[in-house]
Amino acid sequence: MPHGPGPGRRVTIVDVARHAGVSTTAVSKVLRRAYGASPEMQARVRAAIEELGYRPSAAARGLRGRTYTIGVMLPDLRNPFFADVLDGVEAELGGTDYQVLIASAGNDEPAEARVTDAMIDRNMDGVILIAPLSSGPRLERIARTVPTVVVGRHGRSAVHDTVADDDLTGAGLVVAHLAALGHRRIAHIEHLEKDPVRLTEMPNAIRADGYRRAMHAHGLGEHIDVASTTYTQRGGYLGAQELLARPERPTAIFAGADIVAMGVLDALAEAGLSAPADISVAGYDNTTFAAFGPISLTTVDQAGHQIGVNAARLLLDRVADPARPAAQVRLSPTLITRRSTGPV
Amino acid sequence: MPHGPGPGRRVTIVDVARHAGVSTTAVSKVLRRAYGASPEMQARVRAAIEELGYRPSAAARGLRGRTYTIGVMLPDLRNPFFADVLDGVEAELGGTDYQVLIASAGNDEPAEARVTDAMIDRNMDGVILIAPLSSGPRLERIARTVPTVVVGRHGRSAVHDTVADDDLTGAGLVVAHLAALGHRRIAHIEHLEKDPVRLTEMPNAIRADGYRRAMHAHGLGEHIDVASTTYTQRGGYLGAQELLARPERPTAIFAGADIVAMGVLDALAEAGLSAPADISVAGYDNTTFAAFGPISLTTVDQAGHQIGVNAARLLLDRVADPARPAAQVRLSPTLITRRSTGPV
Repeated sequence: MPHGPGPGRRVTIVDVARHAGVSTTAVSKVLRRAYGASPEMQARVRAAIEELGYRPSAAARGLRGRTYTIGVMLPDLRNPFFADVLDGVEAELGGTDYQVLIASAGNDEPAEARVTDAMIDRNMDGVILIAPLSSGPRLERIARTVPTVVVGRHGRSAVHDTVADDDLTGAGLVVAHLAALGHRRIAHIEHLEKDPVRLTEMPNAIRADGYRRAMHAHGLGEHIDVASTTYTQRGGYLGAQELLARPERPTAIFAGADIVAMGVLDALAEAGLSAPADISVAGYDNTTFAAFGPISLTTVDQAGHQIGVNAARLLLDRVADPARPAAQVRLSPTLITRRSTGPV
Repeated sequence: MPHGPGPGRRVTIVDVARHAGVSTTAVSKVLRRAYGASPEMQARVRAAIEELGYRPSAAARGLRGRTYTIGVMLPDLRNPFFADVLDGVEAELGGTDYQVLIASAGNDEPAEARVTDAMIDRNMDGVILIAPLSSGPRLERIARTVPTVVVGRHGRSAVHDTVADDDLTGAGLVVAHLAALGHRRIAHIEHLEKDPVRLTEMPNAIRADGYRRAMHAHGLGEHIDVASTTYTQRGGYLGAQELLARPERPTAIFAGADIVAMGVLDALAEAGLSAPADISVAGYDNTTFAAFGPISLTTVDQAGHQIGVNAARLLLDRVADPARPAAQVRLSPTLITRRSTGPV
């Protein structure tokens, strides 16, 4: 039985030394990989470390330099698009010493401030903020404190990098596809946005703008019809109920995200309707849900995995050189047509 | 323009003092809420802190005591069941000073060891490990270092708490339901498990065991038919393909998790089959996906939110008193019948 500490007490260098039958100085030498520790000594100390489960304190290491921690803040754990982005981040950081720690901000600005503060408090080496709601000045203040990459949100900054999808083009692809199928009453479900800066920078607002512009471009301006809810399954459900209750029911619904389209399909099923027989439905993000056979959702692929890879790569660069000029990466979306959309 | 530091440099107490036009000693007094700082001084310092975005270092605080960080390790970000558990954890910790940081271990034992080591390294005050793969001795070593609650996995320990669902009963509910509908060829898709300890402790192994026991209890022992894959959408897809290719095709498939059932429905759609017309399909977890109208999946509700609430409550107790006796919470599952299962 190893003479480890009791429950809840942290194993210290003293426990390791006692267990190995050596001095704490010897343990310290092995840990620092310093000269003067014989191979036998190293083996005894390493065995004691393994048996007792000793972990050197990262807080102590943090004071001396890096904590090898990357924070990723995302709005919502239920949206499968963010899992794609995280896959890309993890793929790029795999094989490095960095640990990714994730926090959900729940689409709420005060909660988001608590999360970013918590990441800074914990001396994270860098943060990736996915579709953050914070004001531009606040994002810049974060970026002046810790190397930062902002994902999804448009808007340039001199102090942080951004990786975003061309949401204006993506929304246009959906409207063009539905218009080509003969649809005129094409409705949109957006994530409600009122803040003037976020209206020009958030992906949801840019998709809604892209929808309106494309409707005008196709001569369908008079049919513009938007339900303002949230980018959640519930938001899609409520948005579809609202659209279905209107005097002139749409023949196609462009949901601003796949998770929203999921709620739309739920509301349609409840009303005894189906896609595309009664109403065509399209989403955005090309998540695993969209590819799911029984759903087969037409959507826009914004390459979430590639967004994550780019974000992690930029962040590692910025950790190495925090003062380097800011970079903006813009990825081009593609339309994926599936069975949920059809001729009017 | 505030005279903040350049990009990537952390705001220090010196920056705050300079910006507020006071001494660093005065700033320190305000931070420590010590006596001797006038209300005017406090207001000036707090304004400078806010304008510069100064955050005291949590690493420095960590050396002096708590880091107010709770780590949650989960196997897979794509399984919506874990979002339910996390909702419960966040609900219970909401209003406390604790920040939840999440890490995904990707159903991989070495990756899991890296994650738990990383959480210990970062001086987290407590960890919640969801369905961990690690050996019992390793889990106990973790629990002797940091207050630990193990979720999902059965098996008692004197040093960590556990919160689990009664998976044996849950699997039995599914088989009883399908048998009552007249099904005899009821197949199961399990997450492959070979380790002898995990075979008695992991929820996937206990569900598979519950399936076998219930089949025998209903006199259907000769029809036991298991496909061994993984608890992922892909695992469900491959498992269903395997079952569909057998000489005697099952009339019902009990997938060990809703995410697995999603893959089953995908494979059925690809083969031109549907549930329940051709094959009844049941899952486990009662995720948002199961309740989704167009799917309407019969499943077992193991109260993920309540599991999360219990785990967080036990962890806060244990952080306050690391040496208190270990607790085991076992929740009773209920069957939720929906449209994906029907008479044979």
